[in-house]
Amino acid sequence: MNNFVFHNPTRILFGENQIALLAGEIPQEARVLVTFGGGSVQKNGVMAQVRHALKGRTVYEFGGIEPNPAYETLSEAIALARREKIDFLLAVGGGSVIDGTKFIAAALRYEGDDWDIMKTRGADVIDAVPIGCVLTLPATGSEMNAGAVISRKSSGDKLVFHTPHVQPRFSVLDPSVCYSLPTRQTANGVVDAFVHIAEQYLTYPVDGKVQDRYAEGLLLTLIEEGPKALQEPENYAVRANVMWAATMALNGLIGAGVPQDWATHMIGHEITALHGLDHAQTLAVVLPALLQEMRVSKQEKLLQYATRVWNIVDGDADARIDAAIGATRDFFERMGVKTHLSDYGLDGSSIPALIDQLRSHGMTALGERQAVTLEVSRRILERAV
Amino acid sequence: MNNFVFHNPTRILFGENQIALLAGEIPQEARVLVTFGGGSVQKNGVMAQVRHALKGRTVYEFGGIEPNPAYETLSEAIALARREKIDFLLAVGGGSVIDGTKFIAAALRYEGDDWDIMKTRGADVIDAVPIGCVLTLPATGSEMNAGAVISRKSSGDKLVFHTPHVQPRFSVLDPSVCYSLPTRQTANGVVDAFVHIAEQYLTYPVDGKVQDRYAEGLLLTLIEEGPKALQEPENYAVRANVMWAATMALNGLIGAGVPQDWATHMIGHEITALHGLDHAQTLAVVLPALLQEMRVSKQEKLLQYATRVWNIVDGDADARIDAAIGATRDFFERMGVKTHLSDYGLDGSSIPALIDQLRSHGMTALGERQAVTLEVSRRILERAV
Repeated sequence: MNNFVFHNPTRILFGENQIALLAGEIPQEARVLVTFGGGSVQKNGVMAQVRHALKGRTVYEFGGIEPNPAYETLSEAIALARREKIDFLLAVGGGSVIDGTKFIAAALRYEGDDWDIMKTRGADVIDAVPIGCVLTLPATGSEMNAGAVISRKSSGDKLVFHTPHVQPRFSVLDPSVCYSLPTRQTANGVVDAFVHIAEQYLTYPVDGKVQDRYAEGLLLTLIEEGPKALQEPENYAVRANVMWAATMALNGLIGAGVPQDWATHMIGHEITALHGLDHAQTLAVVLPALLQEMRVSKQEKLLQYATRVWNIVDGDADARIDAAIGATRDFFERMGVKTHLSDYGLDGSSIPALIDQLRSHGMTALGERQAVTLEVSRRILERAV
Repeated sequence: MNNFVFHNPTRILFGENQIALLAGEIPQEARVLVTFGGGSVQKNGVMAQVRHALKGRTVYEFGGIEPNPAYETLSEAIALARREKIDFLLAVGGGSVIDGTKFIAAALRYEGDDWDIMKTRGADVIDAVPIGCVLTLPATGSEMNAGAVISRKSSGDKLVFHTPHVQPRFSVLDPSVCYSLPTRQTANGVVDAFVHIAEQYLTYPVDGKVQDRYAEGLLLTLIEEGPKALQEPENYAVRANVMWAATMALNGLIGAGVPQDWATHMIGHEITALHGLDHAQTLAVVLPALLQEMRVSKQEKLLQYATRVWNIVDGDADARIDAAIGATRDFFERMGVKTHLSDYGLDGSSIPALIDQLRSHGMTALGERQAVTLEVSRRILERAV
């Protein structure tokens, strides 16, 4: 096992009716900006619950944070927050709203051009406005980690930053708010969480037995519960298991002390930036292709994955790896998320532009061994067509 | 899944040579009291590493905190800390040293008779001196939780308290410090961690799939690595897996949102208080007997445990449960920890006194359904002879 530091101070309030406890988590005198996305939180009653919980407090609202939250939109929120002297941010939404709110939080206490936060990947952030979350879409894990992905429309960039200063103070996870999620968002969330686990698990072994068993436990949970979430959208237990698994998938625990890949995400980000595919769609396209391309260097973990997650025990090593990758692809398809670029109307002609984008973002040596060069990324994308 | 609040802000520094990072975790101007147990941390070089890391700081030392830390001993440390205006406590040791240090931390900021902390189980603690830990014995999980068990020689009491104020700010987990552990302590630690997991897992199902898979993953890790820790005491990977599993066993995560038992611990505490058995020895004696006694109400989880942890799939339900309980007992024995009271020279004649102690401590309705009455505890102890 590799040395590691693990620190996750986010307080989780999990369960039905926990939104009502919000007031106790936010300082009485705080000037709160509630951030949200489109109209869904208005329609499904979540915003009403939030407003009720914060009755009598100083609360402003900023809606309209889009999927793949845009710097341009967030800049408006930052201006509003400055004007109203906001000192607490409450993100009500999924990963995009929470990620966007993290950028707002850091930008409000940042000196200089706030896009530099993204250019330096968060390294020079020294403070941020405190954040709380009401999660409405299990997927990204942003509600219990210190990272965020921000896009900039004007340049087509989609970049990641990390800083402990934007780790949420608390997050409310009420599984029943997922009942009204559109099928596509439910499916995307499960695929996103699944691939987060794969990025931290399908690398090479370092004898991290707890981390491996935890990762496998989360994958098994998503495999069992993900399809049920589509079939029985108002099954509380199913929504609860998916929600908790998605949070656990990216809160630092399964990745502590083990190698991490993240090439699938980095390649996927460029597909979203160039072609507008949903984040999870890009992951479902890239992961199976990447596992095929990297099957030799990932062999030991792929075989462990085949056995422990998919119960594939027959055949030689190559056959079991093929079967495990096939089962992964089938799972995504069963969740209704297509796994080939061609399913989204793209052919190989977009690959050179994607490689150019990777180059321009410095993504020239990705993966747990920095072995995913631009040439390897190109081969992965070719396999993904 | 039940509603829950999960909050674990302890910062973990895991790996070789992490003790050297201590100074960065403790405020520069702090007046530090380093607490420890017997001579082992002097002999194995851990105290030397701690002293080196804190060179130039204001540091006092208090040694001699015994297994089952005694109020009488801790009172001396409290007097020393008051005299020297200590404002940071660094526990260097296993669960007993850390638990004792938690009591010191709470007592230093407590008004009134500090034994009341134990009588109220920590409920009226409103502040404590901050604590850091250097863990030397994986077992109790105290390095990453807010609980402690304290004994009082004069009365024969062994009681538990919990308060978030004594949650360690950080804990250093260096697996290589375990190389020199006596066999008995290594074995006890594995059994203790195993039973912590059982207390949170072998109850009744509430469809907490992540929690179940995590618990099973920890049990499997201890079953695989525990015996190896006895056979290859200087195998770093083995020590690392046991250490991380033991911390994870009782940091709140696997118990969040699921029922918990703890009857084995409560009955075991009385055996230690009356007869001086090691904590883990009492657990190894009580757990198999308790699982037999409660096999009907625990049936579903026992069957899941049989299948997923012990791969027991043949036979009817009763046979599989018997086999799983037998495998548990065999595992403890394989670790060198005996599982019958008679192995420790005790017979049924001590049972009435143990029941009296349970009564006097209000332990009249233990377990996940409060079904372990004094009569049931008596039957469990009879099975344990």
